[in-house]
Parts: sequence; C-alpha cells; structure tokens
Amino acid sequence: MAPTTPRLVIPIDLKKKPWEQNQPLHNRWHPQIPPVADVKVGEVFRVEMVDWTGGAVKDDDCAIDIKFIDLSPVHYLSGPIRVLDKDGIPAKPGDLLVVEICNLGPLPGDEWGFTASFDRENGGGFLTDHFPSATKAIWYFEGIFAYSPHIPGVRFPGLTHPGIIGTAPSMELLNIWNERERELEKNGHQTLKLCEVLHSRPLANLPTTKGCLLGKIPVGTAGWETIAKEAARTIPGRENGGNCDIKNLSRGSKIYLPVFVEGANFSTGDMHFSQGDGEIAFCGAIEMSGFLELKCEIIRGGMKEYLTPMGPTPLHVNPIFEIGPVEPRFSEWLVFEGISVDESGRQHYLDASVAYKRAVLNAIDYLSKFGYSKEQVYLLLSCCPCEGRISGIVDSPNALATLAIPTAIFDQDIRPKIGKVPVGPRLVRKPDVLRCTYDGNLPTTKNPAASM
Amino acid sequence: MAPTTPRLVIPIDLKKKPWEQNQPLHNRWHPQIPPVADVKVGEVFRVEMVDWTGGAVKDDDCAIDIKFIDLSPVHYLSGPIRVLDKDGIPAKPGDLLVVEICNLGPLPGDEWGFTASFDRENGGGFLTDHFPSATKAIWYFEGIFAYSPHIPGVRFPGLTHPGIIGTAPSMELLNIWNERERELEKNGHQTLKLCEVLHSRPLANLPTTKGCLLGKIPVGTAGWETIAKEAARTIPGRENGGNCDIKNLSRGSKIYLPVFVEGANFSTGDMHFSQGDGEIAFCGAIEMSGFLELKCEIIRGGMKEYLTPMGPTPLHVNPIFEIGPVEPRFSEWLVFEGISVDESGRQHYLDASVAYKRAVLNAIDYLSKFGYSKEQVYLLLSCCPCEGRISGIVDSPNALATLAIPTAIFDQDIRPKIGKVPVGPRLVRKPDVLRCTYDGNLPTTKNPAASM
Amino acid sequence: MAPTTPRLVIPIDLKKKPWEQNQPLHNRWHPQIPPVADVKVGEVFRVEMVDWTGGAVKDDDCAIDIKFIDLSPVHYLSGPIRVLDKDGIPAKPGDLLVVEICNLGPLPGDEWGFTASFDRENGGGFLTDHFPSATKAIWYFEGIFAYSPHIPGVRFPGLTHPGIIGTAPSMELLNIWNERERELEKNGHQTLKLCEVLHSRPLANLPTTKGCLLGKIPVGTAGWETIAKEAARTIPGRENGGNCDIKNLSRGSKIYLPVFVEGANFSTGDMHFSQGDGEIAFCGAIEMSGFLELKCEIIRGGMKEYLTPMGPTPLHVNPIFEIGPVEPRFSEWLVFEGISVDESGRQHYLDASVAYKRAVLNAIDYLSKFGYSKEQVYLLLSCCPCEGRISGIVDSPNALATLAIPTAIFDQDIRPKIGKVPVGPRLVRKPDVLRCTYDGNLPTTKNPAASM
Amino acid sequence: MAPTTPRLVIPIDLKKKPWEQNQPLHNRWHPQIPPVADVKVGEVFRVEMVDWTGGAVKDDDCAIDIKFIDLSPVHYLSGPIRVLDKDGIPAKPGDLLVVEICNLGPLPGDEWGFTASFDRENGGGFLTDHFPSATKAIWYFEGIFAYSPHIPGVRFPGLTHPGIIGTAPSMELLNIWNERERELEKNGHQTLKLCEVLHSRPLANLPTTKGCLLGKIPVGTAGWETIAKEAARTIPGRENGGNCDIKNLSRGSKIYLPVFVEGANFSTGDMHFSQGDGEIAFCGAIEMSGFLELKCEIIRGGMKEYLTPMGPTPLHVNPIFEIGPVEPRFSEWLVFEGISVDESGRQHYLDASVAYKRAVLNAIDYLSKFGYSKEQVYLLLSCCPCEGRISGIVDSPNALATLAIPTAIFDQDIRPKIGKVPVGPRLVRKPDVLRCTYDGNLPTTKNPAASM
Repeated sequence: MAPTTPRLVIPIDLKKKPWEQNQPLHNRWHPQIPPVADVKVGEVFRVEMVDWTGGAVKDDDCAIDIKFIDLSPVHYLSGPIRVLDKDGIPAKPGDLLVVEICNLGPLPGDEWGFTASFDRENGGGFLTDHFPSATKAIWYFEGIFAYSPHIPGVRFPGLTHPGIIGTAPSMELLNIWNERERELEKNGHQTLKLCEVLHSRPLANLPTTKGCLLGKIPVGTAGWETIAKEAARTIPGRENGGNCDIKNLSRGSKIYLPVFVEGANFSTGDMHFSQGDGEIAFCGAIEMSGFLELKCEIIRGGMKEYLTPMGPTPLHVNPIFEIGPVEPRFSEWLVFEGISVDESGRQHYLDASVAYKRAVLNAIDYLSKFGYSKEQVYLLLSCCPCEGRISGIVDSPNALATLAIPTAIFDQDIRPKIGKVPVGPRLVRKPDVLRCTYDGNLPTTKNPAASM
Repeated sequence: MAPTTPRLVIPIDLKKKPWEQNQPLHNRWHPQIPPVADVKVGEVFRVEMVDWTGGAVKDDDCAIDIKFIDLSPVHYLSGPIRVLDKDGIPAKPGDLLVVEICNLGPLPGDEWGFTASFDRENGGGFLTDHFPSATKAIWYFEGIFAYSPHIPGVRFPGLTHPGIIGTAPSMELLNIWNERERELEKNGHQTLKLCEVLHSRPLANLPTTKGCLLGKIPVGTAGWETIAKEAARTIPGRENGGNCDIKNLSRGSKIYLPVFVEGANFSTGDMHFSQGDGEIAFCGAIEMSGFLELKCEIIRGGMKEYLTPMGPTPLHVNPIFEIGPVEPRFSEWLVFEGISVDESGRQHYLDASVAYKRAVLNAIDYLSKFGYSKEQVYLLLSCCPCEGRISGIVDSPNALATLAIPTAIFDQDIRPKIGKVPVGPRLVRKPDVLRCTYDGNLPTTKNPAASM
Repeated sequence: MAPTTPRLVIPIDLKKKPWEQNQPLHNRWHPQIPPVADVKVGEVFRVEMVDWTGGAVKDDDCAIDIKFIDLSPVHYLSGPIRVLDKDGIPAKPGDLLVVEICNLGPLPGDEWGFTASFDRENGGGFLTDHFPSATKAIWYFEGIFAYSPHIPGVRFPGLTHPGIIGTAPSMELLNIWNERERELEKNGHQTLKLCEVLHSRPLANLPTTKGCLLGKIPVGTAGWETIAKEAARTIPGRENGGNCDIKNLSRGSKIYLPVFVEGANFSTGDMHFSQGDGEIAFCGAIEMSGFLELKCEIIRGGMKEYLTPMGPTPLHVNPIFEIGPVEPRFSEWLVFEGISVDESGRQHYLDASVAYKRAVLNAIDYLSKFGYSKEQVYLLLSCCPCEGRISGIVDSPNALATLAIPTAIFDQDIRPKIGKVPVGPRLVRKPDVLRCTYDGNLPTTKNPAASM
Repeated sequence: MAPTTPRLVIPIDLKKKPWEQNQPLHNRWHPQIPPVADVKVGEVFRVEMVDWTGGAVKDDDCAIDIKFIDLSPVHYLSGPIRVLDKDGIPAKPGDLLVVEICNLGPLPGDEWGFTASFDRENGGGFLTDHFPSATKAIWYFEGIFAYSPHIPGVRFPGLTHPGIIGTAPSMELLNIWNERERELEKNGHQTLKLCEVLHSRPLANLPTTKGCLLGKIPVGTAGWETIAKEAARTIPGRENGGNCDIKNLSRGSKIYLPVFVEGANFSTGDMHFSQGDGEIAFCGAIEMSGFLELKCEIIRGGMKEYLTPMGPTPLHVNPIFEIGPVEPRFSEWLVFEGISVDESGRQHYLDASVAYKRAVLNAIDYLSKFGYSKEQVYLLLSCCPCEGRISGIVDSPNALATLAIPTAIFDQDIRPKIGKVPVGPRLVRKPDVLRCTYDGNLPTTKNPAASM
C-alpha cells in the first residue's frame, strides 16, 4: 500500500572524503549555500552524515591526531535540505519548521566513536587549564550500548542525538552574528571576567576561508571566496539552532526551527552516540558518523505565532524543542554541587559557568577515588548521560550548579559509604585514556589540596 | 517492639513568632550558635520549621507584604542539631554527616504556600529588570497537589524539599566567606560584566546585626553583638551546604555534609512545596512551613575520604547529594533554549547565567501566548517542577542553557501546532497574580519586539 | 482566604475497638448500612481507618495471633460516606463517583505494619499447599521506607494505597452476589479443576452473622439480624469495587466507582503500606492503619456513559481507575516466568492462575539461594512492589505469567552471574519470619527437585 | 582496533521463501535439528528473521489471507545457533545461556507489520467467541513509531521484542511435552471448566508433519519423517523459553535460558514491533520481519545454580529475564478491572484468565465509546504497550485482573469527564479494520447490555 522505507536523501560513502560525497557537505552557515535535496512535509526520509571531523580522527592507539587536529573545517554538515509543503511550495521566512526525529543511529559498518579533549593551544575545553593535554578515548558500540577500552568499568545505553541541526540564516542574521562575535574577540579580554576562569581560546571563531567547504559551490571560484569570507562558523549554537548539543534530543523528539530563507534549508550533523550536559571536553560527546530518519511539517507564519524575538531585531529568536517518553531512564543519581567561587577562592557574582566548573571538578576528583585517572573521568563526564543543572541563580552572590551522575553506568557502587573507599589493585582502571604531552607555556590551574 | 514514631526534636508552634519558639530559631551561620537538640545516628527524628519569613507573608489579597518585606531576618532555620554516634560521641570536624530524608511535608493545619518576586529595590530576582514590581501568588495544597487561585489552569504534584540544609561553619571558614564576599561587594561592579545583565542588588549580603536571631544566645547581650557582627547571612549556598535549592532533594534523598565543628550542628529550613531549577523569582519556590523526618549517619574521617577541597584551603569543599527513585516522573517536556547573547544583542563569552536568562525569557513569552500574563508565567516557572540545564558550555562563544517544562501540569496542550495558538476569552487566565506598583527609578529592560 | 486543611470526617482512636469508634465501622456490604458522614464534591476531606483486623495482630515476637485469627470480622471499613453535589443533592444510582486520592499514609503514632500468611486450615493463601504454617513479619516505617527485622537486607519505599474502596451495592446487586457465590461453594469442587491447584479454603465466604459489624445498626437488634444474614463479605472485589488490591492506587490516582444507592455511600479500608501484584500471602500487603485525603466529583449519569455491563444485568459492571505520575519508579527488574503446567507436571489450558503460581514458586526458590528462607521470600513477594503480568494468554495450551522484581530493593546484587551464587554465613538472612507449627492434616505440595 | 560491526550469522532474503533461505529456517522444537551457525561468547552478532508466517500475510486491502491461513507451519524460526565459549567448547546441558539483546528492529526495506485475529474455526483468539471473524490491521513504521490506516488516532513508539527465543529441548524434555499436551487434548474438555470460557480451539497443537520445516534436514527423507512426527509445535512457551511473548524484552534485556543439548542450539523468531500483555488477538502483536543484535555468555553449571525444577523432573524449569532501563516510559494510565465472573454471570474460583477476559472486554467497550469499532480496540489492545496485571489472586472467590492503557498513545483525551463522551462525526474512527465474514456455526457470546 504505502511507501514505508525512508527515502535516502543524503547518502554518505565512508570511503570518500567530505568534499567527495555525492551530495557535497558544507561546514559553514550562509544563505547562499544551495540546497542539495528536497523533502516534502509528511514523508519520512533518511539523512546520513560523517562524524564532525569527516574522518580525521582514527580508531587507533594514539591521540596525536587530536593534538594536531585542524579545527578550521569544523563541522561537516549534511544538507542544506529544502522543505516543501504538500503542494510543492517551499517553507518561507517567518514559518516554523517542525523536524521530528523518527529514528537515528550509527552508520552500519561504522559502529564506534571517540571522545577527546583538545590541546590547550589548539581548541582547549571547559577544563583545559586543569587538563591541558590532548586526550582521546575510543568507544565501541554493542547495539545501543557503548564501552571503551580506555575507560574500563562503565557501559551505558546511548541517548543518541544530532549535535547540530539548524536552518540557513538570512544575510541580515549572518551580519548580526559576525558583528557581535567580532566585537567579543576584540574587546572581551578587557571587559569579561569569565575569560580568566574559562581558559578556552580563542574567544570566538570568526569566518575564515581556511578549511571552508560550501557544498555545491566549487572551491576557489569567486563566489566561493566571497561567501567563505563571511560565512559563519558552526561552533556555537545561535538563533538558527545549530550546535545545540541538547543531549535528550533523541528518538521521538521534535525541533521547532525558525525559517529565515526560502525552503528553510536546514542542515544537520555532528552525531553523538551519547553526551553529558555541557559536553565539557569540547570534542566531548561520543562522536560518530550516523543516520537520521526525519519527518517535517511547516507551521506557516509560526515564527510570529510561537517565537518571541528577545533582542534588538525580530531575528533574535531561539528554536523550541519537544522531548518525548523514549529514552533510557535512570532512577538513582549521585549529585555534585558547585558554587560561583573559583579555584583561587575568588567570589563571582551569580555566575553559573563558574559554579558548573566547580561542580564538575568536584565530581572528577570524587570519581578518581574509585580507581580512575582524572582524565578518564573528565572524558567520561563529557559523554555519559549526566545532567548539568542550574539549581540556584538568585541567592547572591552564589549561583549554584549541580552535576547529577546516574549510578547504574558503573560496575561498582560509587556512593559514599561508611568505611574507606574500596581502592586497591582490582579497582585501578587500566589502561588509561590515550594522552599526548602538553608542550605549551600557558599556566595550568593546580589545586594543591586535591587528592593524587 | 521497636520505637517507630519519629521523635519530635524541634517542634514549631505556628501561633508564636520565630524568637518565641520552644527551641529558638536562628537566621545566621556561626560556629558559636549553640545546638538546641541532640540526635543519635540511626534514629528517625522529626524537625519542624517555619516558612523562611517566619510568617511575615500572609494568605491574603495583596502583595504589599512582599513589597515592603524586611529581608534582614532571612532565613529562619530550625537547629542547630548536634549528631552523636551510637556511643554518644559527637561528630567531629573532618567527618561526613549523612542525612537521609525519610519523609517531609507541610505542617498539618498550614497547607498553603506562596511564590513571590520582590520589588526591584528590595531584593529583586533573576528577571527583576524585566519585572520590577513586587508580585505574589498563593498556592493551596490538596494532599500532594498544589493549585493557585492566581495562576489558573495548572495543578501539579509537589517535589517537596528543604531549600536549606547545612552544617555550622568553623571560624576559619566563616572568615573566608566574609572576606571573599566583602571583596565582591566592594569591587564587583568594576570588574564583573555579569552585573550589568543580572540586576539584583546588592551584590552580596554581608553580616548585619539588623534582624539577626541567634537561637539560644539572648538578643542584646555582648556575646550576641559579637556574633551577629560576623555571622554569615544564609542567602547563598556555600561550602557547608546551606541554601542549596536543589529541587529534587525530596523523600528518599541523602545529603553528605562536611563537618566543621564538633557535633556537626546542622540546621535546616526554607521548606519548598515545589521549586523549578534556578528558583528564578527569588522568593520563588512555593514557600511554606513544614516538617522533615530525618535519619543521620556519621562517616568518620569522611571529608578526606570523599570530598576534595577545590581552592586555597582544605575547607573549600562542597556537599554531595544522592537522589532516589521516589519522585513524580513526567514523560513529555517542552524545552526552551537560550544562548549567551543578552537582550541588547551583546555577545557574552560562555556565560551560562546569561544563556539561562534568555531561555527563561523565551519560555515566559511563549507561555504568555496561551492566555497568561507574563508575571503569572514568571512565578510559575519559578516554582513548578521545570528543569534548567547547562546543555553546552564549550562552543565558544555561546553557552547554551535550556529550560524544560513538563507539559502535563497544564490543563491545555501547550505544544506548538499547525494553525494559530488557541487564544480567546476562554483562555485568558484570570485573575492575575497579586501585584504592587514599582515606584523606583532603576531602568527596566524593554524588549520592543516581544509580544504584548 | 480558602480553607485548606482537609476536614476530618472519620476519625479513628487507636485505643478503641472498631465497634467503639465515634463513627462506628462496618465489615459487610449492604445497602441499608447508614452513612456516617456527608461530603461535598470538590472538598478535600480526611478519612482515617484501622488496619483490616482492627488491631487483632500485634507488634510482638510470635505468629500465634495469625494462626488463630478469627476471620469472620474481615475487613473493618470506614464509612459509608454519602456524597453530595454543590447544591447538596446526593449522588444517584446510575451516576459515576470520582474519588481522587490527594494524599495518604500511616496514622501518626502507628508507623508499623505486618505481612502474614494464614494457617492452611484457617484462611490459607495462594501457596498454602507449599507453606501451610501461619507466619508473620513485622515492618517498621522510616518515613516512606519500610524495613523488617524478620526479612533483613531489603528496604523499599511504599507505594501506599487503600486495599478496599467501594460503593454500597443495591439489594438487587447483593442478591446476585450471594446467589453466584453460593452456587460456587456448593458445586465448585465438582466442576472446577483449579480448586485442585489453588488449595485455599473455603471456595467462597458466604454471609454470616458471626463477627458482623454494621456501623450505626445496633448489634442484636432485629434489623441487625436481618441485614447480617444477607450482607456480603468484603473479601472479594466485585462490581462495586471493594477489595481491588490494585497496588499502584496511590497518591494522585482516581477511582471511578458506579453508584448503586442514593448518596453512593462509599467505604474504604484495608490500608496497605505496600503490596505486590496478587498479594499472594493473602494477609499479604504491609497491613496497617492509615489515613486518606480524598476529593470527590459526581459524573451524573456516568454509569451509562462510561461503564458497560458485561453480564446478564445492567449491574454487571466494574470500576475504572486512573494512575498518575506520582510513584516510585524502578529501572531494573528481574523477571520470573511460569507456564500453566502445575507442580505435578500436569498441563492446564490457558490458565493464568496456574502460570502465576509457578512464576511465584520459581521466584521464591531463586531468591532463597541468596540467603533467605522460602517463607521470607513468600512474604516479601507478597508485599514488595513487584509486578505480576499476564504475558501470554493465547498460545494454547500455555498461559504465560511473569513476576517482575525491582532489583533495587535488595542490599545485594541478585542477578545471575558467572560463578557461584554468593552464599555464606554473611548472607544467611537471620532471624527468620515468625512461624507457627502447622498441625493440620491436609497434604502439602512437595517439590523433590527443589533446592534446600 | 576491534571488530565492531555485528557479524551477520543468519541473513534473510525477503524475496525468498522460508525454506529457500541460505541458512534454512525451522518451525519445530527438536534436539536433532542441526545448528546452522556458531557464535562465541562475547561477540556481538546479528540474526535476521522472517515474520512468523514467512510472508503469508500481505500488506493489502483484505483479510482473506488471515481467514484461510495455514497454521501448520507456525512459527518460522532462525537458528539453531550453537554457542561456544572462548576456547571453542560448546555450552553443555546444565549450563545457563545468557543472551543479551543489544539492538533490534525491522528489516531495512520492510518497515511494516500486521495485527490480526483469526477466524473462530481457524485459530481463534482470546475473545474469539465475541469476535469470531478474521480481521487484520496494517501498521506502518516511522522510525520507532507505528501508525495504522485501519486504526486512526493512535501512534506509539514500539517496545520491540522477539516473541520467541528458546533453546533446543532434549529428547527427554520433548517427550514430557508431548505426553502432557496429548493428555490435555484428550481429556481437557471433560475436566477443565476454563475451556467453556476461553473458546480457542484446539486445546493443544500436537506434532504434525503437515507444514513442518526442519532446517538442514531435507523434507521427505526418513530422518525428516521421524523427527517431524515427534517435534514440538512452537505455539506455547515451555521450559526452554520459546514463545514467551514478554513485551518488555527489548533493547538492553537479558534472557537466561536453560541448556538441554550440547551447544545450547537456540533459535529465535516471531519479531514484534510492539505487543500488549497477553497478545489477546493471538496474531496479536505488530508482527513483522526483523533483526536482532545479540551477545551471549555461558554460565557453566548455571541451571543447578540458578534455576529450580518445579515438577517431577529436573527439567521442569523456566528461564529468567532481566529488563533494563531502556524503554518508552508512560506516566498516565487508565486502568480497567475484571473479576472472575464470566459473561453469563457465573462465578469462577480465583481464575485470573476469566478475570483478565472481563477486564479486556470492559476496556474494549469503554474505548468503543470514543469513536472506534470494537474490532479496532480488540486489535489495538492486543498490540499497543498496555499492561495486564494479576492484581489480586487470594480474595476468594474472585481473582482480580487489570488492564492498564497508556493515555498518551491517543490523539484525544480518553479519560472519563464530567459531561458526555465527545462522540460525533469527527470522532468516528474510519476506516475500520479489514474484516471477513464469519461463516462458522459455533455460537458467539452476546452481551445484550453492552453498548452499540
């Protein structure tokens, strides 16, 4: 009777490079990147995608690929996909695009992923001042479960999701982005105290032609040059969605995206087998190639109906998400707290980022008592299904953030108990993560009172 | 055979003032506030408590009590309670105190609560620049459910918890607190950009003798004066736990508190019938009087064994929490996102507080389309079981925060749908919250593009 | 403003006997038992209740009270309660009565309960042929948790519920009950094979004046005699609800009861701190005194609108229930299966009762390997939050039933593992349940192949 | 580094018949059916399977294929699979085989399924006396969701599972099966009352050479003839597992199967996209082809260690199952109750099958008020994730069974409400299921009082 198998609108051949794919990929946001496929509302279709590096990170015994990774081509996306209604009329600016995730998973034949922290001088991460070295852990999948030879003693089901899904910006929106990020990079260090605590560099990633891939627009042409110079990087989430990194955005979820250009022209990529709230190690989810089975609807005029601009223009909106009942549910959690006092003892004002940093540091140190290296825990908390919450944001001067870890992912009972932590040879978690030396000169944050 | 009814160690007489109670209350943290009760490990005991204002806010038709509330006596706590082991030996500094919440609830005969936002010039709140007026909503309880005549159309089960639970600080720890908060109040405005976005005033609440209550220490004595001048305010959560506002800390949870003074001398108060992550309106949970049934254990030497100082001294620790399977579970959520771009369009650097502010603003505006006033939604999101997450904290320059709202608490379907939002007389949610005029001069943040 | 404390409509004084209570109790179903209280729709009211035996079972060191218990006064109920609409007009036959459970719990000062199996010749139970002795275990409550000195190593939160809630039957319905149950008792042994497998005696419990209590109708009067001779026993659940024993009927649930007499005249009792599906030991929940906070609505004409008679008269209906989000949620379960082959190896036809018996026997034997006596497991599976499912009812000739046990209630990991079950002195669960001798002559079912 | 893609040990070509597959299928249980594949403990492997009919039921507009279906080849299974330990030594009788379900789903390109009830004279079903006609509904899959053109207004995520998984029986066990089932078929009608209430025919399905497929054993050979005459049918679940139909046996579950022959020789099939407890319509799940990704362990000697014989021989055991956290969770349920009084008003003794029949009848009639035909609800409750519970099994004479339906699967609010059920043209659920005439002579059960 009816067609039931999802139509494959963007196939990936893993033996080919991102720029060699049939429907060429792109790694920038720009209104003039042409769509590579059309879909109709109501149809279920399949989109495949490379991992965000396009295969630059290997399933091998060494983190050197992470240390020297070229971050300019971040992230390879599948799309843009143009969305048409039943009558073939494309989505229009001002509409709301509804994307339902009917199914997703790793690409068959490629059931593995990686979690990594970048070198402090090449990308960094949330705790790069504590852990400046490039590190890497490989994860293997057994169906819906992941385990790592580099982080023994844990195994968990993936709450798999696309890290990135977003619509193409209009030129006006793109200009707003470039302007405000340029201003930050120029003056941020003078004006923002948070930069002293969160050491990632640079402050923003401005447009660059280096590593730029623009889908059907041939590299090196005049058009390419023009667009590449102004196209936005895909690293931060913005008004168009993009790199949202919402870890619960899995099977059965819906995303309501604003439409800024005709056809909506949405793109997706950066598949995560699993991620913890915050994705703290930066290359921090279990990064993999994958597929999505999607279904779209168009809510005509929905931006005005459902979204509210919050800023100087009508374009200052954010997408909405709907999370359904289909996800692993954990019932016991161990919760670590942080307040907005930084590692030097300095008091910050209602700063949830500082509070979360401290909560994560507390959790890392705690779990390292159970036989793990701190780098193992750093990567684990970056990719396992842990929850980062803003618990208190009004009790001046302390913001209070919490990190909740499901206890069931460990093969030992990690709760505090009367008597000593059960350490000993049996519980030393070997081998460790793959790790490079840090050869830079930036100072690291030491915590003299911390264990080990 | 065995005694089974929890021993009532701190009773409350609601007809009396906080300072008239049998076991006198206190509203400051200081090592020299004497314990008012002893408990033994393993016994289940009952602690009663006033609401945090000690009855200053009334179940009436007007928010004037909120507008002119005296915040100097914040918060009235029950305790300190000294904890002894089986042999009668008190907990010692360096131990870890385990407090299990066996049961809790409102005080019988007092089954109501309030949620309020302070006037911008008397306390403020997370969004005080948007909503500068004092507002109040009353909630009535039907067993485990709450409903409000001021916010029609919602009813939800309480995830009831104590807002405050903490041990007495040592003198050394108290000095650390006072020093770092004094420094903030003095220099914060010059150095912290976040103060421009989060408008609550003052930056910190330093010790003051005004409104100070110190339990068994008689007001006006020399001892009282000395302690009152240095005792820490209870507003922020700190190393001793305190005002954690962790909304899931309900029946079946455990708190692992560091012990800084002999006996642990823990206090508790600020009972919440329900709270949303962040408690955004400041007086933002459903505030009520209540009771706790608790059971303690002592992990000897547990601070060194389980907690890690993260800062210049061994006292820079945070408590740990354990959340169990006993709580209302919702299966469908609507999720709002915010990025660290403020209402003026200015780009901030990985600032989760700014991102969360925008997520909350987005949610308020959205829900106001379903017949609510924005003040109704502001108070609702402050006290209903919504989740505030730090979803992305590494994708420079945007931190990405999310606010997830369980759809089941509404009597209408609040999800976006094809076609218009069902507005109309039937859905105008009347009456509104109780609201005073704002008579101050501080500028408010206007969002010209926002609806209504 | 509004009254918020639930009105206490039926108080219990635990120092008094069931027949001495202010609002006298009753233990039979009959249309002429007069209501003892009126409630209005929309109001939250409180009903207190004795345990089903009215205090006949003691918190002591011996099961002798169970062995010789008089079952004729089963169960003491609070009520009947007459329900009026806003205008004071009572519910009418044909209406549907909605009862919402706003809150519930043990009676303050009486925080304990018991689980027991009757002697084979005085009540029996689902497995009385295997476990013919009277046994008893006492449970103590720590807030929402229960633990037993007689079944060490388990502790779980209660999914507390009233075992019995039902409306008064009309005379016509009562006659239907008496007739069909009389027929069963007379001819059941000849015609029903199941009686050979489920050995509880007698087949039905017909009206008896012995032990009969009829509320406001004075014992010994002519009216009492007449009613007592025809009033239905409360043991089985029937068309009016009654002894439903639905273990999830806890806080936040709703019951839709058919109304057969003016006022609805509903009664409730048999409070359970916790129960497993099936309540296999018969006195098998954690039996206790308790309170309910309830709220009623009347759906006028709702029987015809929502219920369907399934039988020869319009009275052959059953109530409907609504279970909400407020209950302990477990995430890991160990599941035991049974098929409809009985212990002698005989094949039964799609018999779910036989299949469930075998599933329970399998579970008991399995758990006894972890250091428990079989009687400990029998009582535990009767009262802990385990789920009994009819998994397959069509695959002739085997019905397939399953019993799912949440693994988190144990202090050890009870899952099968490579290597031997960790038995040893540490795991022998002592002391055992309280147990009497079985002095009867009925044959017991032995399983020669079973362990221990 | 490691191999990560599951090895495909049993491929299915959907264009071929069951007997034409590369690894030929089988549809009987017998120790001498040779294994078609070997797997090692610890490796993740993939097994594909046809739907249980091997393609006999079509995705078309008519139920005629159901009406005249040949049930003799039920069910086509993939296997047997021989399991070896790390050293290549096969599982041995007395071991316990652990099978973990790492992943599963429909076969790519075949994303649809069917739910059907057989004609009363050709297979029947739980309610065949009420619904004697052959009916069929087709389901289409959108990723993890299913919807049916024949049952409008519902859509739900699949809790996908294999209906059948079991090990090969030994000759001794096979003889036990044949003997007890032969006895039932011979004498059941005289001795079992339940046969009068559950009208499915025949009472048992004894071995038959008709339709028999035995894997690698060529049809028509002497060996085939001998085995076919004694090989057990796969319809009922038995000691070896087999047709368990446990609806929660989805991703992340483990099955602990007894081993009766060297190599364990387990087989699997009868994939269900979703099923309700009981699978009431018989062909009652959403039946489909599919794949499993599995991982095995062997617990040496585990039968004695973990299973208990419950019957005359050590072979009278049942498997154990472990259900994990990975499944759709629903939070609101509507619950229907049944007691062991049959449709004629006759009282049965603690009969859970009769009680469940009445609970299901109640639910069907109720839901038919919301615009559905009764046949639509019959099929829906057979395949949607509803829970069938044995709530009370001791309250003589009534067993009490419940059927709980998650309200979220409907596009309308199905709870009782004050006022009338919202019927009307909009809610008449058209079209209906595909249905044939019933041309037989067996009497049907009429319920004169029922609606419509």
